[in-house]
Amino acid sequence: MREPMTDANHLKDHIRTIPDFPQPGIMYRDITPLLAHPAAFKEIADRFAARYATAGIEGIVAIESRGFMFAAPVAYLMGLPFITARKVGKLPFTTVRESYALEYGEATLEMHTDALTPGQRVLILDDLIATGGTVAATAKLVEQLGGVVAGTAFVIELAALNGRAVLSQYDVFSLIQY
Amino acid sequence: MREPMTDANHLKDHIRTIPDFPQPGIMYRDITPLLAHPAAFKEIADRFAARYATAGIEGIVAIESRGFMFAAPVAYLMGLPFITARKVGKLPFTTVRESYALEYGEATLEMHTDALTPGQRVLILDDLIATGGTVAATAKLVEQLGGVVAGTAFVIELAALNGRAVLSQYDVFSLIQY
Repeated sequence: MREPMTDANHLKDHIRTIPDFPQPGIMYRDITPLLAHPAAFKEIADRFAARYATAGIEGIVAIESRGFMFAAPVAYLMGLPFITARKVGKLPFTTVRESYALEYGEATLEMHTDALTPGQRVLILDDLIATGGTVAATAKLVEQLGGVVAGTAFVIELAALNGRAVLSQYDVFSLIQY
Repeated sequence: MREPMTDANHLKDHIRTIPDFPQPGIMYRDITPLLAHPAAFKEIADRFAARYATAGIEGIVAIESRGFMFAAPVAYLMGLPFITARKVGKLPFTTVRESYALEYGEATLEMHTDALTPGQRVLILDDLIATGGTVAATAKLVEQLGGVVAGTAFVIELAALNGRAVLSQYDVFSLIQY
């Protein structure tokens, strides 16, 4: 897959770091200024759409809830199904479930049993990769349904937390790194 | 504002009704098949963008979390700030808060105190209007921050619940009605 021609570090100008949120010791990367900057928000969606344009992707799996913000324009631009991995209890049809540890806390994600067709190649998209637990659980959900994880992509990668280690069998791409 | 030239009732073909979710007596309108249908998903974003193209909108306020799915492509298409109203505890900066009654349950929404500039004209966008409590709370948040609610827009309107009544001072638009 083609890498972006230029790096995306200038997007950091629109990310605000808030210390000790949601708990002491966490340097929270606040993307709300980025979302409110139309050129930066557009650039992110355009970069993802360009990188995967020829990757044979057949669906975008978006992780609740910040993943929705970036995955929706990418699905729109690429003309692909928008598929959701949601927090437990939100999806009304029959589901598969995976529980996982977060950077702080624990959670369970669900996908509908008819969210994918067997063999369907999907890109999993989220705003941020920390320890990788959320996306690893999402990848397991995709695979439970017979889907193929063709890639995982993130706006922000917290490199020191080494989320790539738990995703070693997948392609991992991030636009900016801390 | 210009209405769409044709009605959008064919989008109902992609909405699945699930009885008794999340509790007995509720006919839940499941939009996951709609999200997974690229032409339908594109049509929704395109219709919203077209309707408000000349309405002087200066920001899209998206309500967590299904609102994000539709508001993000609209913000992208219109080149407007994407502004979030989120469930309590999610936003890391200083916030304003509003509590409200749901169709089933109660909840609190927050917006960042710097999410808007005074006088900024915004469109509030969500997937569905039921009793209108969620969007009325969001409108109050916008107004607490000095913003102007230039419109409210929904993919689905549950007309029997008469959410329009609590939004009588605002422009209310929905693509499809049940």
